[in-house]
Amino acid sequence: MSLVVQKFGGSSVANAERIHRAAGRASAARRAGKRVIVVVSAMGDETDRLIDLAHQITPSPSRRELDQLLATGEQVSIALMAMAIHHAGCDATSLTGGQIALRTNRAFGRARIREIAQRERIDRLLDAGQIVIVAGFQGIDEESNVTTLGRGGSDTTAVALAAALAADECEIYTDVDGIYTADPRIVPAARKLDAIAYDEMLELAALGAQVMHSRSIELANNYNVVVHVRSSFSDVPGTRIVQETQAMEKVVVRGAALKRDLARISLLAAPVSAGLAAAVFARISEAGLVVDDIIQNVQHADGTTNISFTIAVDDIGEARGLAAILSLELGFRAVEIDQEVAKVSVVGIGMRSHTGVAAMMFDALSKAGVTIENISTSEIVIGCIIRRNDGERALQAIHDAFGLERKPAAAN
Amino acid sequence: MSLVVQKFGGSSVANAERIHRAAGRASAARRAGKRVIVVVSAMGDETDRLIDLAHQITPSPSRRELDQLLATGEQVSIALMAMAIHHAGCDATSLTGGQIALRTNRAFGRARIREIAQRERIDRLLDAGQIVIVAGFQGIDEESNVTTLGRGGSDTTAVALAAALAADECEIYTDVDGIYTADPRIVPAARKLDAIAYDEMLELAALGAQVMHSRSIELANNYNVVVHVRSSFSDVPGTRIVQETQAMEKVVVRGAALKRDLARISLLAAPVSAGLAAAVFARISEAGLVVDDIIQNVQHADGTTNISFTIAVDDIGEARGLAAILSLELGFRAVEIDQEVAKVSVVGIGMRSHTGVAAMMFDALSKAGVTIENISTSEIVIGCIIRRNDGERALQAIHDAFGLERKPAAAN
Repeated sequence: MSLVVQKFGGSSVANAERIHRAAGRASAARRAGKRVIVVVSAMGDETDRLIDLAHQITPSPSRRELDQLLATGEQVSIALMAMAIHHAGCDATSLTGGQIALRTNRAFGRARIREIAQRERIDRLLDAGQIVIVAGFQGIDEESNVTTLGRGGSDTTAVALAAALAADECEIYTDVDGIYTADPRIVPAARKLDAIAYDEMLELAALGAQVMHSRSIELANNYNVVVHVRSSFSDVPGTRIVQETQAMEKVVVRGAALKRDLARISLLAAPVSAGLAAAVFARISEAGLVVDDIIQNVQHADGTTNISFTIAVDDIGEARGLAAILSLELGFRAVEIDQEVAKVSVVGIGMRSHTGVAAMMFDALSKAGVTIENISTSEIVIGCIIRRNDGERALQAIHDAFGLERKPAAAN
Repeated sequence: MSLVVQKFGGSSVANAERIHRAAGRASAARRAGKRVIVVVSAMGDETDRLIDLAHQITPSPSRRELDQLLATGEQVSIALMAMAIHHAGCDATSLTGGQIALRTNRAFGRARIREIAQRERIDRLLDAGQIVIVAGFQGIDEESNVTTLGRGGSDTTAVALAAALAADECEIYTDVDGIYTADPRIVPAARKLDAIAYDEMLELAALGAQVMHSRSIELANNYNVVVHVRSSFSDVPGTRIVQETQAMEKVVVRGAALKRDLARISLLAAPVSAGLAAAVFARISEAGLVVDDIIQNVQHADGTTNISFTIAVDDIGEARGLAAILSLELGFRAVEIDQEVAKVSVVGIGMRSHTGVAAMMFDALSKAGVTIENISTSEIVIGCIIRRNDGERALQAIHDAFGLERKPAAAN
């Protein structure tokens, strides 16, 4: 009998009517003869409400107690979901992270899953024909302290359960109906993909696709879990995130993305020394700052060098202080901060075996009158730093140039 | 080092300001050198909010899932209380019923405590100077299903912890400042008691004193836990519920109570038979109806008998149907229902060794022009059924007659 994990995010369980709708999906799958595990997030804005309660008490709540507090959000959802499934006429039992012994390390607020020790309990309930409802986002450490998994935590719970119980598919129900060749709000002709490879999805997540957090995609990749991203509000199939196939590799560019709200920090004209770049990025990493791209490292004739990198524009305050310290300590003559940059990228595993993608992209941008300021590449991504106000035009131009709106003959 | 358990009810943790006030009490006790355990209920109307959520999903939620849901209310409170105590500068750790392994049977919604298996964890935290905050009202069964203890559950948790860890005192913080000789809203001269015996408190609880549920008082009695009922909003000492002493017995009447909203059901003129009363009360018990008093069982010259009893007036609908069936099956000629009765009582362990209490009470009621319709007595209680609209006058008359407003020389 096939096993499916269905994950419903906060907006899919935001009120009684939506909980009933989600319960209807789970019950339908059960009636179709599947074994069904449901993973739910906290209702709508419940997590925000709880954080607000904590901040009414103290500006800096203890991480342990914040996790103790936040975990109640998902516990409320699982109980209500069980009631709704009962109401729909199926058997169901809700289980917290503690009740399935989803063990994590003790990193409160960003815990990592170690194991799911109570798999037998889930199996026993499934064997008895029950739908098993598990609280997303939460686990316990070795001492039964409640931990939470951080951003995208419920997706991670769903994928971990799918991996541990060898599910046939992990369905992620969300408010979009799949992964598109580009953001349809910018590119109206953008096409929904039937399938995408884990590596491509990871790159798109890093480029700002909000659909799934990269941790859960990595986990799915590691355990070969088929993830099906689909809409809570319709029955049309969404996009499957899968292991790459030969057919998939025939498509050179799978999608294009625009990352807005970047800032570029340029550290100018420091005397060249062996450990300079290492010293710079060690300090940045210690400060907990996430660098988007290291852009260039030009060496000048006078024996000095520039180092520049991009970060999220939200981190600019922190980065500014750090850059000033770096320039004092390491001898950069000036720090330039540009808050008006964006990055447009193309992603595709087919690029590994195809040439000419970069040239085609640069040509498209040039024809659209977009100036490329910097270029970053990886095995399956080419990204160009451009002016922010060129962003939407650039994305549209690239999407057109690669003909992404047309379904390729090979696959997708 | 002395150990105190402090229990704060829903109104004492209803908002951030009150949580800070409760945290201040716990911190003050800790700074005074005590070992401190705090037990908290759900915030204000949180339990009602959760029940309402459940009823938005289904009119008859499963008891297991309702307990899973309701237990989140106390989990929110313990986390916020821990944050507030941190804010006040003390160390604290919050623990759910599951985390202290407070084991119960599987009677969801009205579970009974079996043991607190993780006493060592609490001891270890106390040894480390921490204030330990425990979620009231909740436990887990042998399979880690969440259970709740029903009405007065948080008091029961507090008393059970005090018993298990041999606390010197269990402080119950509430919105009244202690136990009074009578309800001060009816008898303005009513006096707050310094101490009351467990048995007396049990009788007063049965007579409608809302301060503590009888289960927690019984538990305190069984384990000899000193319970101190006091106000969340002031520092004056409240009333200690203790084992009776010889000094206490010198006070004949400790207090008086009025139970309004009773109804009397009279089953009239059935043929006498050996098992008649047994048959009547077996049916009533099977129907889950709680009888307040069995009033009389008069045998008539014609070989018939009457049976009458009082119940809460809220149960009248159920009782009416049952009485009709009883009269058909057992041959009562008529059923009389009187919805306008009340009961006025005096309570005191000293009655055991004193005579004349009943006479004094009847005299006081007679002088006040109150007609006594029925009388019920136990070892330490005398109760009179009267017209409901005589209730307040009767309570005042009895309070005056026994001089309860004066502190006795002996004790209290």
